[in-house]
Amino acid sequence: MRILVINGNTSQDITEFLATEARAAASPGTEVVPLTATFGARVIAGRRDNAIAAHAVLALLEAHGAGAAAAIVATSLDTGLAAAREAAPLPVVGLTEATLLTACMLGGRFGLVVFDRRTVALYRELVESYGLAARLATIRVVDLTAAEVWARPEAVAPELAEQIRLAVTEHGAESVAVLGAVAVALAPRLQPDSPVPVLAPMRCAVLQAELLARLRMPKPTAGSHALPRPGSPP
Amino acid sequence: MRILVINGNTSQDITEFLATEARAAASPGTEVVPLTATFGARVIAGRRDNAIAAHAVLALLEAHGAGAAAAIVATSLDTGLAAAREAAPLPVVGLTEATLLTACMLGGRFGLVVFDRRTVALYRELVESYGLAARLATIRVVDLTAAEVWARPEAVAPELAEQIRLAVTEHGAESVAVLGAVAVALAPRLQPDSPVPVLAPMRCAVLQAELLARLRMPKPTAGSHALPRPGSPP
Amino acid sequence: MRILVINGNTSQDITEFLATEARAAASPGTEVVPLTATFGARVIAGRRDNAIAAHAVLALLEAHGAGAAAAIVATSLDTGLAAAREAAPLPVVGLTEATLLTACMLGGRFGLVVFDRRTVALYRELVESYGLAARLATIRVVDLTAAEVWARPEAVAPELAEQIRLAVTEHGAESVAVLGAVAVALAPRLQPDSPVPVLAPMRCAVLQAELLARLRMPKPTAGSHALPRPGSPP
Amino acid sequence: MRILVINGNTSQDITEFLATEARAAASPGTEVVPLTATFGARVIAGRRDNAIAAHAVLALLEAHGAGAAAAIVATSLDTGLAAAREAAPLPVVGLTEATLLTACMLGGRFGLVVFDRRTVALYRELVESYGLAARLATIRVVDLTAAEVWARPEAVAPELAEQIRLAVTEHGAESVAVLGAVAVALAPRLQPDSPVPVLAPMRCAVLQAELLARLRMPKPTAGSHALPRPGSPP
Amino acid sequence: MRILVINGNTSQDITEFLATEARAAASPGTEVVPLTATFGARVIAGRRDNAIAAHAVLALLEAHGAGAAAAIVATSLDTGLAAAREAAPLPVVGLTEATLLTACMLGGRFGLVVFDRRTVALYRELVESYGLAARLATIRVVDLTAAEVWARPEAVAPELAEQIRLAVTEHGAESVAVLGAVAVALAPRLQPDSPVPVLAPMRCAVLQAELLARLRMPKPTAGSHALPRPGSPP
Amino acid sequence: MRILVINGNTSQDITEFLATEARAAASPGTEVVPLTATFGARVIAGRRDNAIAAHAVLALLEAHGAGAAAAIVATSLDTGLAAAREAAPLPVVGLTEATLLTACMLGGRFGLVVFDRRTVALYRELVESYGLAARLATIRVVDLTAAEVWARPEAVAPELAEQIRLAVTEHGAESVAVLGAVAVALAPRLQPDSPVPVLAPMRCAVLQAELLARLRMPKPTAGSHALPRPGSPP
Repeated sequence: MRILVINGNTSQDITEFLATEARAAASPGTEVVPLTATFGARVIAGRRDNAIAAHAVLALLEAHGAGAAAAIVATSLDTGLAAAREAAPLPVVGLTEATLLTACMLGGRFGLVVFDRRTVALYRELVESYGLAARLATIRVVDLTAAEVWARPEAVAPELAEQIRLAVTEHGAESVAVLGAVAVALAPRLQPDSPVPVLAPMRCAVLQAELLARLRMPKPTAGSHALPRPGSPP
Repeated sequence: MRILVINGNTSQDITEFLATEARAAASPGTEVVPLTATFGARVIAGRRDNAIAAHAVLALLEAHGAGAAAAIVATSLDTGLAAAREAAPLPVVGLTEATLLTACMLGGRFGLVVFDRRTVALYRELVESYGLAARLATIRVVDLTAAEVWARPEAVAPELAEQIRLAVTEHGAESVAVLGAVAVALAPRLQPDSPVPVLAPMRCAVLQAELLARLRMPKPTAGSHALPRPGSPP
Repeated sequence: MRILVINGNTSQDITEFLATEARAAASPGTEVVPLTATFGARVIAGRRDNAIAAHAVLALLEAHGAGAAAAIVATSLDTGLAAAREAAPLPVVGLTEATLLTACMLGGRFGLVVFDRRTVALYRELVESYGLAARLATIRVVDLTAAEVWARPEAVAPELAEQIRLAVTEHGAESVAVLGAVAVALAPRLQPDSPVPVLAPMRCAVLQAELLARLRMPKPTAGSHALPRPGSPP
Repeated sequence: MRILVINGNTSQDITEFLATEARAAASPGTEVVPLTATFGARVIAGRRDNAIAAHAVLALLEAHGAGAAAAIVATSLDTGLAAAREAAPLPVVGLTEATLLTACMLGGRFGLVVFDRRTVALYRELVESYGLAARLATIRVVDLTAAEVWARPEAVAPELAEQIRLAVTEHGAESVAVLGAVAVALAPRLQPDSPVPVLAPMRCAVLQAELLARLRMPKPTAGSHALPRPGSPP
Repeated sequence: MRILVINGNTSQDITEFLATEARAAASPGTEVVPLTATFGARVIAGRRDNAIAAHAVLALLEAHGAGAAAAIVATSLDTGLAAAREAAPLPVVGLTEATLLTACMLGGRFGLVVFDRRTVALYRELVESYGLAARLATIRVVDLTAAEVWARPEAVAPELAEQIRLAVTEHGAESVAVLGAVAVALAPRLQPDSPVPVLAPMRCAVLQAELLARLRMPKPTAGSHALPRPGSPP
Repeated sequence: MRILVINGNTSQDITEFLATEARAAASPGTEVVPLTATFGARVIAGRRDNAIAAHAVLALLEAHGAGAAAAIVATSLDTGLAAAREAAPLPVVGLTEATLLTACMLGGRFGLVVFDRRTVALYRELVESYGLAARLATIRVVDLTAAEVWARPEAVAPELAEQIRLAVTEHGAESVAVLGAVAVALAPRLQPDSPVPVLAPMRCAVLQAELLARLRMPKPTAGSHALPRPGSPP
């Protein structure tokens, strides 16, 4: 099956990084098709960038969706996810949503670790929009910019390990995930020192996308994820 | 003061309609500047249209914001509102958010009446995203498309009156609002037959925008509505 | 228009202080009419004082409401607000409710700073009663009595600044308000050192009262804010 | 032990009615002391009446509390309950709160039946203020005034039975209570036709008051139910 | 990989039925190992039966878990799921939990259809215990006993179709699932007449179990799903 | 009246300890009948032990319930409580549920102190399952095993006092309870140093059990606590 991995950032090197992770996670027979936003921010840094990236994600999905079995919105804010689900005739999963729902199956509350203090509100709103607030133990933050993390990802590992430790001991997290494109490859490195499972978002997203493709659920013809009737409000 | 009224639809006649209502509501000395989306759907009909319109709203705000005292996102899904607040150096209000918060000051729960059954989920999500779910009595629906309503708005009035009545008697609504651009002028016509206040969204939005302009709150330098630092994740 | 500013405390000097702030916030043409509780506590210090003050607020509103355009319950516990709305034929706003709803239009969660640790529960209950718990980032406390603050308000400013800072950095508040009559004049002094907007409760209340007066919503004839029928239970 | 039964209405015949029920429920050795509000409404009919009655309840408690083992706020809106708890050195229970908490021990959600449609919001707010919204199956209403019910209580029984039935079959109530002073004696009459327990509020309140009296918990010296320090804000 | 399918009922024919569905859903290379409770009720009919079945499920898991890649608790009340997760060194999924989390990835709220009115509360509690109440549109009921449904499953299909229709049109469900062992094979039959996806619980459970097995998350050593230390309270 | 005190642990010395406390709390004329689980863990240490103990509790209740007026599930996780309520023809209370509901009548939020960090999630889930999350101020933990506490209960008192202090000052608890069989006798010792009431779980449970026995509520014939019909699903 063919799975689109849609990078809402315009940065090609992030796309390649995501594609590598996605291919490592995919089952034999799954073809990963990486796509890069053609307009918007190099790296999404906030609400405005994310809103524009949603448009870019929709454009990519419409241009490349034909023949695909499923698509992954591969930004950790799940850029444009619900709109993509409405617009597309195929299953669409989000990097973070897939991670959180997989974490639920491990039991207990999950903890999140994110970069840049100002994104905490965005991730909290995302979790709440999924109706999963009751499963969120805490969002811990490593207050570095993406640029700083990209430059030396290994340097940030000790601080991430400490935030994971606090999520577990202080907030009762029973699983954790580090969110952000820059963190996509870090889970295996962080697992050995963590007393609880550390989920790898891209692995969760690829496997859930394959799962949905196998389920072959029909496109709804009612509700807010059906295609709108022409001339509908609002 | 100058207030932008940003129509996220590309339909010029909706803009003119909104502008007329906004001018009728504005205080003396307020100049209403209507703006129309330059790309996207003629009439936003769902999640995808709304996501693309958010991009258009941001573009208008960036092009025309200089010198304005405040801006109104004048679509009833408050298209791109949070992103606009982050990006702009001026207060931004949403048509629906301003209506709901004003309704709160009347006491009790508010009821909403919307068009097209599939939009119910979108408005419910909007109310929830504002943290106002506990104030929502019900969302009643008149299952007509915008095109049908536009064609003969007076014909829909009896059905709206009936839905308002049910919101009050069956669900305990203590105020109501009819949402959707096509309904922007209907509140005064519906009030006489309603036992509770019927809020006029554009009036609420214009007056709240003026209020925020007068308050002269500074742009935050921290949090998710501050401008992102360059190079920030996610 | 005439706006009543109802002080639920029996202390005349607090009334004068509130009136000064209200007049500074009012639009040209608005007449501020300050009123002082004729029985109850000099300074409301808890649940019992507040319950008795609610009676005093209702008595003032009934004696002086005729001809007024709106009323402000000018105690930070919004003493008797819902009862006043039911009883009065005019719009009534609360000092704190108006502040919180205005804060909502700035986006994100608001933080509150209050005096006296035992009032934290009262303010939390107030926020919850408005259905706004999801918008509350934190309630921080400066554990001084009103008397101590009145004596030297400027001395408390550094501690307030520190609590605002913690509300922002530790709890993600994207706007803040300091509640309590003694704090009514402090917002402008605290704003320069705050990374997020500091709302001035009396300014919010006066402007929202003017707004509601302009909206001219009718008194409801159904629901819990209509006048009760004679002989109704409970 | 001596237990005060405080009627927040000024109507002496309601007091006598409540006292009869309380005495029937009390354990041997419990003396019931009925008290009647000395000002306010003959029958509380809404928010304003209830706010004034709270003052009357506090006055009675302060005048008659000495030597009592516990007090019952014997109006179904639990008039002034939290304020009474703060002010009094003895346990205070509310007619409705005691009923709801007792119902919780039967398992599942409780249903409420009330009189007069406009009180539904008041009872919903009361349940929410106790943090028990998740246990509330429904509030059904018999839309008669208290005067109509007082005139012929037996005539209302069939309608009550029907509302109980609907609470069980349509809303999943696993216990029910009919609230309102006029309903205080009705539970035994309604039980035979109900598939779930019908709680008698006064019985619950008297037994819980006796229980708290036996527990001999100390008056707190911290928190919002301790006596305020002199000069405390707000 | 080997996946245990644990039937908490003692009825062998239900086990065979479940095993057939599980095998149809499993990927090539997955071996399905069906297990039947050795004590308890033939068909779980309520809380008591379910509590005893939890013990039986744990006993089966301990006896047969060695060498398995994952386990499915194959009763629609997810009998003993959290306890099984704590006790077992392998991933455990529940029939209903897996269905609900998969439904979340389709977007919007899910509707449930169950048999026997008295089970509605049990399923509501289950959804709430997963923190998914905000995603639940409604639980509709077909009030027949399991025996009646087993006897003629095809006879119940029209009533199920009607309940699905109501879940969509009246409650806004954007996906639905029919819960109960007797319904395990019905989804494909109900899909053609449903405007939204009808999830097949066993397919969801088998695929999610395979997914978790592939993820190879380590057993936690902290939190409430780790093995307890000897001598721990409570 | 006869009240069963059901110890879900198989440890006879815990039963004796519980019986002593229960007898001290009981009213004259109440006979306490202590019962000990005949299978399962000596001391319940987690989810698995608790699930097996639920079976043991049900077995004891069925064997010894005849002629009893009420039963107490005397483990602090309220082992099998809802199942026992469904199965038994008599009132059943839980040690912790009775404590929490009694605490509610003192006003404000309650704080809990528990042993062993991994049980925090279990107690939080328990509070949530009762719909009382809004009343929970905090769960503080003393991270010792039961064995360590049993060995020298008096040694743990200072740490408990410190956790109570933090629950009050940092989290606003207005009453507290220490949960766990090992803590059953500690409340009176901790009260003198606590600024808020310290509830004794067994006293609350015994008195609430007596109260329910006096209320003589009928066994429901509908809902999830009625006896299931034969052949009912799920």
